[in-house]
Amino acid sequence: MGSQKPDRRGFLKGGAALAGGLTLGATEPAFGQLPHPHRYIKGTDDLVAYGGRSSFVTSVRIAHPPDNRPSPDAFGLVFHVAAPLQDSVGMITPSSLHFIGTTRGSFVPDIDPREHRLMFHGLVDRPLVFTMEDLKRLPSVTRPHFIECAGNRSSPSHRTVQETHGMTSCAEWTGVLLSTLLKETGVKAAGKWIVAEGVEEVKGASSIPMEKAMDDCIVAYGMNGEAIRPQNGFPLRLLVPGFEGIFNSKYLRRIKVVDRYYMTYNDYGHLDRDPKVAALGYQIGPKSVITFPSGGQQLTDRGFYEVSGLAWSGGGAISRVEVSTDGGRRWADAEIQGTAYRMAHTRFRFQWNWDGNEAELLSRCTDEIGQVQPTRSQVAAYFGAPEGRPFGVPGQDNSVQPWRIASDGSVHNAIT
Amino acid sequence: MGSQKPDRRGFLKGGAALAGGLTLGATEPAFGQLPHPHRYIKGTDDLVAYGGRSSFVTSVRIAHPPDNRPSPDAFGLVFHVAAPLQDSVGMITPSSLHFIGTTRGSFVPDIDPREHRLMFHGLVDRPLVFTMEDLKRLPSVTRPHFIECAGNRSSPSHRTVQETHGMTSCAEWTGVLLSTLLKETGVKAAGKWIVAEGVEEVKGASSIPMEKAMDDCIVAYGMNGEAIRPQNGFPLRLLVPGFEGIFNSKYLRRIKVVDRYYMTYNDYGHLDRDPKVAALGYQIGPKSVITFPSGGQQLTDRGFYEVSGLAWSGGGAISRVEVSTDGGRRWADAEIQGTAYRMAHTRFRFQWNWDGNEAELLSRCTDEIGQVQPTRSQVAAYFGAPEGRPFGVPGQDNSVQPWRIASDGSVHNAIT
Repeated sequence: MGSQKPDRRGFLKGGAALAGGLTLGATEPAFGQLPHPHRYIKGTDDLVAYGGRSSFVTSVRIAHPPDNRPSPDAFGLVFHVAAPLQDSVGMITPSSLHFIGTTRGSFVPDIDPREHRLMFHGLVDRPLVFTMEDLKRLPSVTRPHFIECAGNRSSPSHRTVQETHGMTSCAEWTGVLLSTLLKETGVKAAGKWIVAEGVEEVKGASSIPMEKAMDDCIVAYGMNGEAIRPQNGFPLRLLVPGFEGIFNSKYLRRIKVVDRYYMTYNDYGHLDRDPKVAALGYQIGPKSVITFPSGGQQLTDRGFYEVSGLAWSGGGAISRVEVSTDGGRRWADAEIQGTAYRMAHTRFRFQWNWDGNEAELLSRCTDEIGQVQPTRSQVAAYFGAPEGRPFGVPGQDNSVQPWRIASDGSVHNAIT
Repeated sequence: MGSQKPDRRGFLKGGAALAGGLTLGATEPAFGQLPHPHRYIKGTDDLVAYGGRSSFVTSVRIAHPPDNRPSPDAFGLVFHVAAPLQDSVGMITPSSLHFIGTTRGSFVPDIDPREHRLMFHGLVDRPLVFTMEDLKRLPSVTRPHFIECAGNRSSPSHRTVQETHGMTSCAEWTGVLLSTLLKETGVKAAGKWIVAEGVEEVKGASSIPMEKAMDDCIVAYGMNGEAIRPQNGFPLRLLVPGFEGIFNSKYLRRIKVVDRYYMTYNDYGHLDRDPKVAALGYQIGPKSVITFPSGGQQLTDRGFYEVSGLAWSGGGAISRVEVSTDGGRRWADAEIQGTAYRMAHTRFRFQWNWDGNEAELLSRCTDEIGQVQPTRSQVAAYFGAPEGRPFGVPGQDNSVQPWRIASDGSVHNAIT
């Protein structure tokens, strides 16, 4: 079933893996034999100012789920848009490909930042209104954080990782800590919660405990080194690291300090008589998925492949990722790339020799507070759902994702 | 001259800085007073697939130097293109705004990745040719690295930080370590150097010592989470972390292992009878620059400002950044954001109360091997150039950049 032990050194040097697995020119090619392109992209002032990608790169976002396209007149073209994780490399999701969750559709508020204001009111000592210019003068932080929609879950009808897991993305966010602003306004003793409101018609607000507001929330204006993109909340977005996506209010315009949990439109997903389900929304559990090889991709021939994927958790930094290539019977540690940041996508890699037989690949992660990503049957049992059919229940499904490699090298979603 | 000691806590809470310096709504605004935009960006299939930025965000690259625009027929529109560092936030330069250095102009090779090949030959045990698909199966790494053009230097005619320092950028690069590939080809005992060649007509090659090739060079296909952009070498670029930009060959097609330093077109900048000058090209020295406030920007009124900038070094990670607000008489430590990566831009921040008087802001950095960014007169003395006029000499100028704040809040390049 291939090597279960990642061993970069010696693995390739041994020669067997590469020589047996890759289609390489085994004899010295004649000098000058390599193709020399005669096509050029003609420089334009537009491309000098702000570059674009190659016409050969066609990775795009898709509506999520694929058939969820309400009337263009009513809600724009789509409701949710999923990121093409199958093509992802590294930690960052490019801003142009970052997933979009919206309650309004694809019509996006077109906000002039000179007119935009952020108001703090309610149970504060000093109500304040900030302009964008005010905010940019204040002490700032830059941190990578994922945002994930609670509806991000795999179903047997999903073929690709974009369909099963594309409602999560990770960016380098820059802005002012919410605690900095709340210390400036002052919070009255009775102020135990905040409600954040964006500019969208359905406002994207939900109640957040003061402990979280004073901890690591960011009033962000920067995303991946430039201004936040309109589809992700330009000019201002509330980052609530590790909480489900809907808390991360876009087009942030108002924060009210209140004394109790306020019900809002956004609580539709958090209401349930079963407290286990109702409480799920706050903190995304530990989760991982293999992005290569994943559903719809194709292994060309047996031999060496680097298995690669993403892991993340609302509980903190990822401390361990394990991979199985035999359907979960044996597990081995994957390599974690670089610094594993708190509440950020973490790239993992695992060295594998595919022997050409059918295989089932899975990943599971552990976060810094010891939470382990559950199996699908564990999630099902937790919700009291029939064994093997946990999807569709309220709240988050962070269960292990299996990919089946067929003997012809095609890759398939193995959940049933 | 303002606080020299960064002290995030208490600084704002004290109230004086913010209340005195920012234009804030001091009384509670009426509920509903905040503007509510009625404009929307209409969703289109194009924007769902691959998003764009707000029309209110107009930060762009510029030709470098601004008047360097050869004939469009001969070389495309421009020779070099500088990044708008004055608008930068965080560590990452967006790929659309990453600086471009080219010996060919703005006509960019338009390469079909299915046809592209990377050949290893010369003093190797086993000459090999890799397709892009081959390379993507191999063990990979993701690392943030800056690339800087050796011509990146401030002159008295430069007004903005884009003009003085815009020929450096930082991206999250993903690819295969060059050492992984060289271990696979094997290197003969006589193989002490490599020459890398790209597809450009003027090939962008220079000799690299084998010690560096086997250390941390990356054959990169990913940039900021997606494929490398055409202007930065799609589909394959050699990253030579910390070496001057011209070593980082774009459109990488061939690596030859050789026994000695080979002269190429690119060595025009490295040839000098003075060995101090001739040797400069390899390793970028420790360098930093304040990006806010910087030349051409405007402070609106006295009070609190976060001073922010970037530091980087070819010698390794940045270990310390100091800021002076009085022309270099007194220095205080700035805060370094998050993890300082080796050979990567590192964001620094410094809390400052502007008292409304003229001021001169400078930053200087120290790297992990103890190198300290030199003053302008130190660089001048090193080159034997007249005091105060070091620019224009061959090799790198990594001297401290001063910005003068006039009493009207306007910011100016203070070098003479």
